[in-house]
Amino acid sequence: MNYDTLLSRAGERMQQSAIRQMGTVAAQAPDIISFAPGYPSPEAFAWSDYQTIAARLLSGRDPTVLQYGPTRGYAPLVELLVDVLARRGIAATVEDIQITTGSQQGLDLLGRVLLDPGDVVLVELPSYTGAITAFRNAQAALVGVPQEPDGLALDALEATTARLRREGRRVKFLYVVPNFQNPTGLLIGLEKRRRLLDWAARHDVLIVEDDPYGDLYFEDQASSADTRPIKADDREGRVVYLSTFSKTLAPAFRTAWMVAPAPLAARFEVAKQTLDLCTGSFDQRVVYEACRDGVLDRHVPRLRQLYRRKRDVMEQALAERFGGAARWRSPRGGFFLWVTLPDGIDAGALLPRALAHRVIYVAGQAFFVDGSGASTLRLAFSLADDARIVEGIGRLATAFREVTAAPPARR
Amino acid sequence: MNYDTLLSRAGERMQQSAIRQMGTVAAQAPDIISFAPGYPSPEAFAWSDYQTIAARLLSGRDPTVLQYGPTRGYAPLVELLVDVLARRGIAATVEDIQITTGSQQGLDLLGRVLLDPGDVVLVELPSYTGAITAFRNAQAALVGVPQEPDGLALDALEATTARLRREGRRVKFLYVVPNFQNPTGLLIGLEKRRRLLDWAARHDVLIVEDDPYGDLYFEDQASSADTRPIKADDREGRVVYLSTFSKTLAPAFRTAWMVAPAPLAARFEVAKQTLDLCTGSFDQRVVYEACRDGVLDRHVPRLRQLYRRKRDVMEQALAERFGGAARWRSPRGGFFLWVTLPDGIDAGALLPRALAHRVIYVAGQAFFVDGSGASTLRLAFSLADDARIVEGIGRLATAFREVTAAPPARR
Repeated sequence: MNYDTLLSRAGERMQQSAIRQMGTVAAQAPDIISFAPGYPSPEAFAWSDYQTIAARLLSGRDPTVLQYGPTRGYAPLVELLVDVLARRGIAATVEDIQITTGSQQGLDLLGRVLLDPGDVVLVELPSYTGAITAFRNAQAALVGVPQEPDGLALDALEATTARLRREGRRVKFLYVVPNFQNPTGLLIGLEKRRRLLDWAARHDVLIVEDDPYGDLYFEDQASSADTRPIKADDREGRVVYLSTFSKTLAPAFRTAWMVAPAPLAARFEVAKQTLDLCTGSFDQRVVYEACRDGVLDRHVPRLRQLYRRKRDVMEQALAERFGGAARWRSPRGGFFLWVTLPDGIDAGALLPRALAHRVIYVAGQAFFVDGSGASTLRLAFSLADDARIVEGIGRLATAFREVTAAPPARR
Repeated sequence: MNYDTLLSRAGERMQQSAIRQMGTVAAQAPDIISFAPGYPSPEAFAWSDYQTIAARLLSGRDPTVLQYGPTRGYAPLVELLVDVLARRGIAATVEDIQITTGSQQGLDLLGRVLLDPGDVVLVELPSYTGAITAFRNAQAALVGVPQEPDGLALDALEATTARLRREGRRVKFLYVVPNFQNPTGLLIGLEKRRRLLDWAARHDVLIVEDDPYGDLYFEDQASSADTRPIKADDREGRVVYLSTFSKTLAPAFRTAWMVAPAPLAARFEVAKQTLDLCTGSFDQRVVYEACRDGVLDRHVPRLRQLYRRKRDVMEQALAERFGGAARWRSPRGGFFLWVTLPDGIDAGALLPRALAHRVIYVAGQAFFVDGSGASTLRLAFSLADDARIVEGIGRLATAFREVTAAPPARR
């Protein structure tokens, strides 16, 4: 049978995620040092706390622990999130909150509920590939806006919006990752965040604010105040805010959430019914108890230390092994170093050579909706331990030298 | 803001699931006896086995337990499923299998990868609402085919297919639940299953076979042989087969799977990357270890006994309390009794009265894509214990008598 003739238009066009692909490569070969996916460090998981919590939950005293749960989410967790959000400056009610099976499901829900084929979504250049593919799979047109050191270039944003308006195209929303962006690690400045809200009001569009890394600021260069969400100052209900426990507790629990104006949250709930009925009950209970019992609060300050140290180790190794050939801006939080190689070096073409030396990363081009970024790459310092970071950067430098020192090909 | 103007066409049309709605009602009031959603019995969960497994998994010895996992699924679980499928007569390789976050995600993936707006999906009259809404949200046109006591009426299927062909409409697949169908509990006869494969070959369409209940046959009226999947005789790669651990282990683990010809399975994998990256690693590991350690095999024979007894208790209560006013065909497996009330009694209109007496069910009309079935209802005997089944049927009979005995409304 020729299955291609059976595919939907969306099904025909779907593309592999560059990050997931690299994750699969790494999983198959433990000797590979992976700087590719943004996996948290297993040192950072509260194993014994989860053991205690799981033993309690699985006693059988509460039969709902292993049952289907409400689509909106486990109610005590939703209520707890009201407090979590308040600490971030966001005033939300339980009617505004939808639990999702990872933030990826939140991105998918946005595509399903808001995007028709041809609708425009504005994204940063570069932007998170998981969002790019989710919106592309909804057949949206993605339009990129360049970044400055303090985030999204507002002049370019205005000019792009005006051009799209002249062309009669409908912008549904702007997708941004203001805190320690994936992939660049950049922070959007506070003043700029407020001006983004003005922009959204003037053009009557939504802002989708994805915030997985906000808690993970590095205290040498940033503070909690620098990470105030755009949503905290959203008086008009123009911001849909996404966050997750994947980077602070553990990805395996697949527990994340969206905050949206109540009428939109209700639409997301109805849409989620057909996606997976509900996020796993046991997973949500573990996360709830970990928050309630203080595991998360005790844990996050340690994570800031841990990832800051990993960043330092990677930066030092890069400086030592690449000299001036690798350029980057020191990230003030999060999981990623965003590296620019000298002009003419293609990070995608370097990848097979790196793989031969048993080290992988994500070539930067996948993050650019305009096809630029050939000489960039994203290095996640989050997963590997210190020794493997040093070893991996060494391998990468070897691969890099082979490519740059190679004589021009002759026939 | 008026959020309605921002919705996609699919987002505008999405409808609440009748089953999920009832689930929410029941969760909010523990004094309600719920025959509504197809929840397994908590007596049926292997609590202490899960406690042992969780303690082992959360020791921290294997860091991948709490990490992101491959989109295709936890590899040892995928390999184990090859054997599970072989025991059902299905020859599959790991390339054919995709783990999903519940079977609902499988239904959603089918919609995403295969359905364009206006494509036709054939479904049984009645059919599972979770499938109906998943395909509707992909903007497919659903066309119903009546049932006979041994399942789908083949003459009607041929006539419908011919009519659609004359109208120039494209049928992408037939969706069926051959084993103890949701909602009717019917089994499709074995000869009819083979004839469905012939039909699919002649018309060059796929069959989607959803099989959550196949293991749960009741030995007084059925055997393993009666449940042989259509997929087992699929020589041409025309069947996509779905099954799940939700009804046998526990729904909270959200672990289900699809079997499809490898080129289609690869498409589902790519599509799932944007849905939720991966199904929860911890959940999949618990399921894997429960299968590997024999928990599932020890458990399933007990489940057959348990649900058969619950069926008997409900049938007896119905016979005693409704006399001839409620008609049903005794289900040979699964979770549901499908009841027809006397003509002119609307099961949807009865529901508020039933709720006033603290008992709920799902009115049958939601399962019919042609709007028929007003006098039918689905009763899940799976969740409540024996005493509550008897009590609940008593309450339902009281509500029924109030409706039927009520004098015509006057003004």
